[in-house]
Amino acid sequence: MKGFGKVTGGVLREEVIVDASSEDHVVRICDAVNGLDGVSVLSATDRTFALHDGGKLETIGKIALNDADDLSMAYTPGVARVCRAIHQNPELSHELTIRRNTVAIVSDGTAVLGLGDIGPEAAMPVMEGKALLFKEFAGVDAFPICLDVASPDEIVETVIRLAPTFGGINLEDIAAPGAFEVEARLREALDIPVFHDDQHGTAVVALAALENSIRIVGKEMANLRCVILGAGAAGVAIAKILLGRGVADVIVCDRQGPIHRGRHDLNDAKQWLAENTNIDGVSGSVSDAMVGSDVFMGVSGPGLITRDDVATMAERPMVFAMANPDPEILPEEIADIAAVVATGRSDYPNQINNVLAFPGIFRGAFDVGATDVTEGMKIAAAGAIASSVSSDDLAPDLVIPTAFDRSVVPAVSAAVAEAARVDGVLRST
Amino acid sequence: MKGFGKVTGGVLREEVIVDASSEDHVVRICDAVNGLDGVSVLSATDRTFALHDGGKLETIGKIALNDADDLSMAYTPGVARVCRAIHQNPELSHELTIRRNTVAIVSDGTAVLGLGDIGPEAAMPVMEGKALLFKEFAGVDAFPICLDVASPDEIVETVIRLAPTFGGINLEDIAAPGAFEVEARLREALDIPVFHDDQHGTAVVALAALENSIRIVGKEMANLRCVILGAGAAGVAIAKILLGRGVADVIVCDRQGPIHRGRHDLNDAKQWLAENTNIDGVSGSVSDAMVGSDVFMGVSGPGLITRDDVATMAERPMVFAMANPDPEILPEEIADIAAVVATGRSDYPNQINNVLAFPGIFRGAFDVGATDVTEGMKIAAAGAIASSVSSDDLAPDLVIPTAFDRSVVPAVSAAVAEAARVDGVLRST
Repeated sequence: MKGFGKVTGGVLREEVIVDASSEDHVVRICDAVNGLDGVSVLSATDRTFALHDGGKLETIGKIALNDADDLSMAYTPGVARVCRAIHQNPELSHELTIRRNTVAIVSDGTAVLGLGDIGPEAAMPVMEGKALLFKEFAGVDAFPICLDVASPDEIVETVIRLAPTFGGINLEDIAAPGAFEVEARLREALDIPVFHDDQHGTAVVALAALENSIRIVGKEMANLRCVILGAGAAGVAIAKILLGRGVADVIVCDRQGPIHRGRHDLNDAKQWLAENTNIDGVSGSVSDAMVGSDVFMGVSGPGLITRDDVATMAERPMVFAMANPDPEILPEEIADIAAVVATGRSDYPNQINNVLAFPGIFRGAFDVGATDVTEGMKIAAAGAIASSVSSDDLAPDLVIPTAFDRSVVPAVSAAVAEAARVDGVLRST
Repeated sequence: MKGFGKVTGGVLREEVIVDASSEDHVVRICDAVNGLDGVSVLSATDRTFALHDGGKLETIGKIALNDADDLSMAYTPGVARVCRAIHQNPELSHELTIRRNTVAIVSDGTAVLGLGDIGPEAAMPVMEGKALLFKEFAGVDAFPICLDVASPDEIVETVIRLAPTFGGINLEDIAAPGAFEVEARLREALDIPVFHDDQHGTAVVALAALENSIRIVGKEMANLRCVILGAGAAGVAIAKILLGRGVADVIVCDRQGPIHRGRHDLNDAKQWLAENTNIDGVSGSVSDAMVGSDVFMGVSGPGLITRDDVATMAERPMVFAMANPDPEILPEEIADIAAVVATGRSDYPNQINNVLAFPGIFRGAFDVGATDVTEGMKIAAAGAIASSVSSDDLAPDLVIPTAFDRSVVPAVSAAVAEAARVDGVLRST
């Protein structure tokens, strides 16, 4: 609580900033203050709403327009020569337009945060916030594109039409399983990086945390059994990146339990998981799958696993309970039996926060003119994030850097750029 | 020509800026300099291309992200409350997101400047330049949207899908007659201002110039005969705004001559003109139409009318030869027989430049939350532009303010806002 006072005419007017836990709480605080003798609330402002007034982004020029000479280069008639050059070689648009550094943050508003299908208008504040993070952390220009569409097909069609404007596409908060198809088809159709952050952002940071966790517990990727709870966007991507990184035994569970070849209720993404994970064909419940496993990664919902489940895991278990805002299990419940605990929350240690991944990934991709974001680039990003925690600092409650660690983006972008070179996905202009 | 010299090791290195008339000219200049005794060109840079390197726009945050507290308001978890508020009332997106001040500059790249159908990638530098003008002159945030589409239908469909992101749509450089349909259908479908600048921007500024010209020559709108050459985007819009302003006798000519009811080769837009203009049913050639007319407005091509044509006009004729870059007739050819001459060029007096109109029109529309750009708002904009030239300054070679006159936008936006109120097109939040 902070106050700024001003005395006028025998009355003290005081501006007070109070942290409240909810809008209800604000009402109760105002009522309580009004109930004090000789004190009345003149007006109450919601800082969060005030900050959103008029939106959070602006589009500005990188060059001055001071006179007719400036105008004749930036606009007509000078611009015509630049247009003609791009017309002759469209690849030059990646040099001579905002495509070189601009990503579209595309959503249809069907799966926004934990709010669900709230529509494109209501998704805008999230996408604007994401654009802030891109610029602040990595100098990437990002623009929100919230689409009023009725199907994944329409998202794909619309983004393909928009592609000449952008150098990259960050897909965001699109409901699964449609989101998988959207990403796969756009990666196929476009020659610019396409990245579904809900899938791969979380997967990259979770892998980064796992890289450091196994250093602490002294285990090897190739020997881990990892149980993933949640077969939505993030769960599928985590499974794939763990397989790509050499984890041999991955079991993904949905609401019905472990996904295995014997099930007949699977969409395409889950069918792929049935064929490529769960080597022992474990069935039953998530509790059954957790017995003897080394790692639990939750991207599902609140309170879905118990202390008893964790107690059945292999020795020195690693538990990443990443459901937001309420994790699958609270860290304090298993502090004595888990070797490492991570969550999606900023008020516990080891926050699995996508902001550690997406800014540096696009920074690296733009820096070298990458045409794709490959699995190799994602795994390299995870390694760079993990390496941003020094050996001296590494500890069970510090397996991942904080969101505000400015050393992360340069490390990630360099690693991603190098992996793009190795994977041969550089633009040839 | 400017020079900046530096002497090192007995050698003078000089950086010289030279205005060249073409890329050929640059080569000839370099060759000539290299031909001088003891002088060699070390490198030559094209300033226009250098200025376009990496694009001309960036997207920045309007708020600081200094710590976790900022992040928790601008992004998760605080943003969720703003999202929920918009979900409950989508109209709030015009207050709490960038929609309040952001316009999309939409083009399919089919009719870019005088370059024709150069495609969406090559159109980007023009749309970026336009965005610079919006921000510089009116504080409007504008973002280029260049679409890879195959038909006007696809433009309409795509822009409707994109609408939740934007507060207004500025259509640009879309080939006629498709552009008419795109604008008409989008105005019908959307509750945000839609403005086709190639039509209405030119029409508004031409009307502004005409308002001042008739003050000089002492004629009345209601008594004017006005011949328009060119029945593309701008020609049709000029005809409509003149009719809206009370000019009784308007004749529009295309390549085949005056458009009249007897013709059978007309598209929808021209059919409308046949039914609503040319009250005397003039046929023949543009020369026939010009006989006895008071105003000529050209939005066609170079050199299409002659001094003899102007000589047949009514007394004190007004000639707006707006084809770019080469007008229908050069001002110097008719300086002694025309009362007022205007062109689209900055190197002659009386430049009809859209930048006088579009920034203030969107500024005014955003200021009051207009849901449309009505004919009344366009006519009001023209009046405000005209009034920006003081009675003292008004002269045959000064009927329109210059592009850099900073008094124009405030005048236009105030007039447009008032006209939106009068026309009852204000958003009701």
